[in-house]
Amino acid sequence: MTSEVEARSGWLSADQIRDARAQLPILYVEALPVRCDSVGSIVSVGLLLRAMPDGSISRSLVTGRVMYGELVRDALLRHLEKDLGNMAMPQIPLSMTPVSVSEYFPNPEVSGLHDPRQHAVALSYIVPVSGDCAPSQASLDLAWLTPSEASSPEMASEMTGGQHKVLLTLLASVGAL
Amino acid sequence: MTSEVEARSGWLSADQIRDARAQLPILYVEALPVRCDSVGSIVSVGLLLRAMPDGSISRSLVTGRVMYGELVRDALLRHLEKDLGNMAMPQIPLSMTPVSVSEYFPNPEVSGLHDPRQHAVALSYIVPVSGDCAPSQASLDLAWLTPSEASSPEMASEMTGGQHKVLLTLLASVGAL
Amino acid sequence: MTSEVEARSGWLSADQIRDARAQLPILYVEALPVRCDSVGSIVSVGLLLRAMPDGSISRSLVTGRVMYGELVRDALLRHLEKDLGNMAMPQIPLSMTPVSVSEYFPNPEVSGLHDPRQHAVALSYIVPVSGDCAPSQASLDLAWLTPSEASSPEMASEMTGGQHKVLLTLLASVGAL
Amino acid sequence: MTSEVEARSGWLSADQIRDARAQLPILYVEALPVRCDSVGSIVSVGLLLRAMPDGSISRSLVTGRVMYGELVRDALLRHLEKDLGNMAMPQIPLSMTPVSVSEYFPNPEVSGLHDPRQHAVALSYIVPVSGDCAPSQASLDLAWLTPSEASSPEMASEMTGGQHKVLLTLLASVGAL
Repeated sequence: MTSEVEARSGWLSADQIRDARAQLPILYVEALPVRCDSVGSIVSVGLLLRAMPDGSISRSLVTGRVMYGELVRDALLRHLEKDLGNMAMPQIPLSMTPVSVSEYFPNPEVSGLHDPRQHAVALSYIVPVSGDCAPSQASLDLAWLTPSEASSPEMASEMTGGQHKVLLTLLASVGAL
Repeated sequence: MTSEVEARSGWLSADQIRDARAQLPILYVEALPVRCDSVGSIVSVGLLLRAMPDGSISRSLVTGRVMYGELVRDALLRHLEKDLGNMAMPQIPLSMTPVSVSEYFPNPEVSGLHDPRQHAVALSYIVPVSGDCAPSQASLDLAWLTPSEASSPEMASEMTGGQHKVLLTLLASVGAL
Repeated sequence: MTSEVEARSGWLSADQIRDARAQLPILYVEALPVRCDSVGSIVSVGLLLRAMPDGSISRSLVTGRVMYGELVRDALLRHLEKDLGNMAMPQIPLSMTPVSVSEYFPNPEVSGLHDPRQHAVALSYIVPVSGDCAPSQASLDLAWLTPSEASSPEMASEMTGGQHKVLLTLLASVGAL
Repeated sequence: MTSEVEARSGWLSADQIRDARAQLPILYVEALPVRCDSVGSIVSVGLLLRAMPDGSISRSLVTGRVMYGELVRDALLRHLEKDLGNMAMPQIPLSMTPVSVSEYFPNPEVSGLHDPRQHAVALSYIVPVSGDCAPSQASLDLAWLTPSEASSPEMASEMTGGQHKVLLTLLASVGAL
């Protein structure tokens, strides 16, 4: 009964998730929250501190799975609210065409992006937030950095799974590298 | 003296504009203002009513020239404020990579986009606005339409110079066609 | 034994596919093959004729699933070769950022894109082909149409599941609407 | 007489170019030529060696002005053929939406991109070439580098005017950073 509801609602049991992860690429959304000035230039970027799939405590983008039956747009908003709180006031992009597509593999050599649990394909976005952000649920902290701090080698060493490469790609797309 | 100031400031005299228009493609920015719901889906699009270069009174995008020394980002904000008023609260895009590039020629057959005055190349954007909009300066009216009203053949007949084609391209880019 | 190999290789048994489709969004790639002139303008677009998930015989984009462990780039090439033959010489895009993201749901009202079998999320591309194309495997025919023929209401009536809307979005993105 | 022809044809006299450059942003196209493998991954990127506006001999993108009356698409092809020769076989992108917009100012602090001669706004593209390239006209050399060589600090020191930043943005857009 529970698992029927879970399946229908897009929530999977632990067993189902384990099975699916061994069989299919899993669709994720991934977001870099940013604060902008009045002409839309990025002033700071937000990075979470969280326990990562590889067991480390690392800086991370907002990220999460798209559920069965869920629009990508709704998944993006859901994960932003889950990780930044309900007062973050994210401005979801007009287009769901991502800034880039990030392909994570159990084998770190396939793409340079690594997820030991699964083959995950993430649609990656930059999302301006204008409200108050508070790290929630699994996140230990939320830090706001300038684009140049975020793109530094120091920050690269604090991000795992290749996420710093994703961060650089996102910053480059808006000329903030 | 006046013209020196104008040249340095990016404002040209009528003579200078006429000369430049016969010699060089002129860089423009062009914007479709939109209102969005909380998940970033477009609810309505704003079209100005104004006197057009071809002498007609037509529906139009927000549009204007990039001045000498001016960032594209600043030109976009300036023209939005000029045409929609100071309370429009436009959310300038993070990236100045346009949604499309619109090439207007004195000869309407070159690209399908027509400007009898000049060869103009416009960087075209979609810009969400969250404040109060009031048509200003040269605009006679500002109408808010649903995406499907805006993309209808009726609206095509109210826009000149091929701007309805630009509108369709912009709407298509966000899946709102 | 067979199913183990299938799971590891990314090929699923019929049962496994049925289960996964009830639980997770399934990742697809989707491509509009085009022929271009020497300056990169689209001369014609290719549409397959095939049996569709809804039981109809309809015009269709090249489309197919991304397998476990497979790069999106490799999936795109594999499906192009499967549907157009080995001599098509597709020019796979430099960037795997799609032109648009197409979300198909069992319920046709969620997004306007419909797949009765599953919730499928397709990364949609335009791919120039320079070689000889021959419809293969499940396809009955391959027709080359001008962009304006392809975007006509007549063609809309020959495509199901909302794919004509995807086609219009792709054509709009390159100014070929 | 000559200048009339020049004006109509889009070619300006030295005087006219000097005047225009003091009054208007000048529209450019800019391209990074690349060689790809059969799945569209970048194998190497081409950089010219040429005399730059600042007087240095530096590594450079393919770059040049869009003329009055000329389509951006035709300008891009013209400059690629001018700088790489007639046998380069460039694959002009399907869409003229650039990968990024590069804004060069006489004042190097406005955008970080610098052109002492003028305010230039370049539409920047990546263009695969499949033929034989030979540096021509004003170029002294054409070097093919791996993406990681091209993005190295060593190469940054060989490029002026901020063009290495443009190169990084272009490489990031295709995940080649």
